[in-house]
Amino acid sequence: MSKYGMYAKFTAQPGKRDALAEILLESAAAAETVEECELYIINFSETEPDILWVTEVWSNPEAHAASLSLEATKAAIQRAMPLITGVESTKLKPVGGKGLSFN
Amino acid sequence: MSKYGMYAKFTAQPGKRDALAEILLESAAAAETVEECELYIINFSETEPDILWVTEVWSNPEAHAASLSLEATKAAIQRAMPLITGVESTKLKPVGGKGLSFN
Repeated sequence: MSKYGMYAKFTAQPGKRDALAEILLESAAAAETVEECELYIINFSETEPDILWVTEVWSNPEAHAASLSLEATKAAIQRAMPLITGVESTKLKPVGGKGLSFN
Repeated sequence: MSKYGMYAKFTAQPGKRDALAEILLESAAAAETVEECELYIINFSETEPDILWVTEVWSNPEAHAASLSLEATKAAIQRAMPLITGVESTKLKPVGGKGLSFN
């Protein structure tokens, strides 16, 4: 089964990036018990003050899709929406490298 | 010390993405012994056939900079250059999440 990856770019309302990061860090903490979530890293842009990126890797596309239907995910999205002006995602197929297990 | 992250977007010459991936996978294998390289994942775009992304996380910016001055890195860059039409990088400050250790 192929892994599924994503870079999700969030543009925060001015001054709201840190509040958005808190919500995403809670989602990452909740994902600690989800075995198929291999990576969920919150990153600030080094150059743009209102931009936040999430690096996600899932064991398979279905695990990612399933996460979106969880009540906890829906609740986090509801809380985050007022802090965000836009979201763009880049869909990826991780093929190998250091830091994850590839079989 | 803050971690340092990067998304490096490579545009391969038409049909050369797989050959480029092989070189980058060799670089990732060499990085297995570099403790400060925490993540070096090679990803294919799900939507664009000639695009390849590398997700990098280093323990600190200096470790990343040092890696670029290694002979092995320079040699890999020389081999990769003819396969590439462009590289863009997005510089990141990883702040937390699942899959890496944050202190």
